[in-house]
Amino acid sequence: MPTSPTTPLPTLVPTTQLSIDLADRRYDILIGCGLLDQPHTVACGAASSEALIVTNTTVAPLYAHRLQRVLAAHHARVNTIALPDGEAHKDWDTLNLVFDRLLGGGYDRRTVLYALGGGVVGDMTGFAAACYMRGVAYVQVPTTLLAQVDSSVGGKTAINHPAGKNMIGAFHQPLRVIADLDTLDTLPDREISAGLAEVIKYGPIADDEFLGWIEQHIDALRARDKSALAHAVRRSCEIKAHVVAQDERDAGLRAILNFGHTFGHAIEAGLGFGTWLHGEAVGCGMGMAADLSVRCGLIDVAYAQRIKALIARAGLPTRGPSLGAARYLDLMRIDKKSESGQIRFVLIDAPGQASLHGADDALVAEVIEANCG
Amino acid sequence: MPTSPTTPLPTLVPTTQLSIDLADRRYDILIGCGLLDQPHTVACGAASSEALIVTNTTVAPLYAHRLQRVLAAHHARVNTIALPDGEAHKDWDTLNLVFDRLLGGGYDRRTVLYALGGGVVGDMTGFAAACYMRGVAYVQVPTTLLAQVDSSVGGKTAINHPAGKNMIGAFHQPLRVIADLDTLDTLPDREISAGLAEVIKYGPIADDEFLGWIEQHIDALRARDKSALAHAVRRSCEIKAHVVAQDERDAGLRAILNFGHTFGHAIEAGLGFGTWLHGEAVGCGMGMAADLSVRCGLIDVAYAQRIKALIARAGLPTRGPSLGAARYLDLMRIDKKSESGQIRFVLIDAPGQASLHGADDALVAEVIEANCG
Repeated sequence: MPTSPTTPLPTLVPTTQLSIDLADRRYDILIGCGLLDQPHTVACGAASSEALIVTNTTVAPLYAHRLQRVLAAHHARVNTIALPDGEAHKDWDTLNLVFDRLLGGGYDRRTVLYALGGGVVGDMTGFAAACYMRGVAYVQVPTTLLAQVDSSVGGKTAINHPAGKNMIGAFHQPLRVIADLDTLDTLPDREISAGLAEVIKYGPIADDEFLGWIEQHIDALRARDKSALAHAVRRSCEIKAHVVAQDERDAGLRAILNFGHTFGHAIEAGLGFGTWLHGEAVGCGMGMAADLSVRCGLIDVAYAQRIKALIARAGLPTRGPSLGAARYLDLMRIDKKSESGQIRFVLIDAPGQASLHGADDALVAEVIEANCG
Repeated sequence: MPTSPTTPLPTLVPTTQLSIDLADRRYDILIGCGLLDQPHTVACGAASSEALIVTNTTVAPLYAHRLQRVLAAHHARVNTIALPDGEAHKDWDTLNLVFDRLLGGGYDRRTVLYALGGGVVGDMTGFAAACYMRGVAYVQVPTTLLAQVDSSVGGKTAINHPAGKNMIGAFHQPLRVIADLDTLDTLPDREISAGLAEVIKYGPIADDEFLGWIEQHIDALRARDKSALAHAVRRSCEIKAHVVAQDERDAGLRAILNFGHTFGHAIEAGLGFGTWLHGEAVGCGMGMAADLSVRCGLIDVAYAQRIKALIARAGLPTRGPSLGAARYLDLMRIDKKSESGQIRFVLIDAPGQASLHGADDALVAEVIEANCG
């Protein structure tokens, strides 16, 4: 008997299912190849509810049609809205395009939003879902490495404010996260590198063995080897799920996931959002945070050098822009982790272990001067 | 020994403390006189945290200074922002003034917002608190009757969208609700009437005996008799707390609190927000919903007439504007209670009992024609 033409081709890597267990609910993260063509994997929420795919103008021509087709059997109506692409559009005006579309189309409270794209699309769609009629369901369909290993998992949603990144947002958990590794095939090299920054992050903060694995496989990852990517995404999501389950609302432990982000956010805000990719700023910021960990006497220089070398091998910048120490400090003070104007940094306490620390401005300025310009 | 000048004067009514019990937390509603001058009653949240009073340009000159003074001992910094007054300003641009102030002033995640004003201030402050850095604490200090009996209790927060009222929002419970009845002294008569609409509401949906009590005391309430107001606010909050405790997220039962609101929202949106006060639209809408309950065979004409007579005695309109039935129906279809384009109304099943019902457009059109223009 000939194979039916609709039978999916065998994939190189098996699909992994992880769960994220929260106080009042639990949801799955699915990682694998060809997932976008599997109706039962992708479609979520009440049967015959309505669906709106939120994506951007770059991703829409690549995957929106496929997602729309696979959702058609489950939902009474499926439409797509393509937002302008990029961090520079992660603002209220762009978010409001989603609300205009939902209200203009008469979408009710049972509507499911599907976030198809990278971190910006995921954060904005999640925040739109958090606020529309005081909360509707949404599904994360991350198509960038960065979103697959980090931003799509854990329910943090937000938009930027001119005065700071992700300052306006909500905690709103998705119904499901569907990480189809095949979507990484169309990602520019620069975006693969940016995603690797968030993969590398999990090593120093939580799993020194994983750091070693990344060092061994960094070239395979940059070459998009599916087995290597599958392991990197799986292990990253496992660590993130473990941390988020212990601290959904970011009261303490969860802050370690922000390793490199305090310096990174300052770079993004200082240059104007979208000049550097988020992952590039985080990559550079991790090197700076590692340096600060050394200067605070927490780790030795060799470990910081090891991290910086891996960041460079991932194709990421290791020197920050020369904004001047004063400007860096001002930008970092409006970080969400700050308390009473005191900046708090995620520093490495030991290989695979991190926590929040305050640091003298003078020491931070030394780090900035040594690593920027 | 002479009385110390700081001893508060004796008040006519004792302070009542109600609790609202939710799945994961509980908070108090305090109702009484002179509460605004009691530091331990008003000040909330982490000691030495920062505070921002959010109010409007009408209420600020009356009470902001007193609230600021009473908070000074508890908080490291207390400031006030006065928003433009009125439902027409319950939008993103006005909300963003709060975010600009918070970010510009370096307010951190431990900040407490105090909502000093009516329903619009409370809803916007609550939504700002829900979104600022993904959630900070807030306290409701309602200064209108409507806010004291309804909008300040239960954690519904929102802003309007040109296409519909309260369409963008969040569930975010306050730390405490402080209803100082003395603040009603400065309220215009029209606002007292508007607040009475939400008081009257609790009779037909939950407590027929309370409806009888309101009929007996409607003149005392309009004359701002403190004992009558204290009972009305207390009983309204008791009923609301009971309903919200059973259905915090508005999955079913809580919808009965929207009695009169489906017609009412259409009136507000159809005329442009702010033309009629929310309470006026709800008052008129309750008459229409009572009429629809009769036409659906649920209650007799006499009960609907009784409700309408009380609405009129409260100084509220009983005839809606002549928008035309088609326009009313269009506006009502984007109500949050709608499902798949089907409008759902809170109808009276029996005196003191209500639930959600669908209704034929033709029947609804009859109600509109009989009660509007």
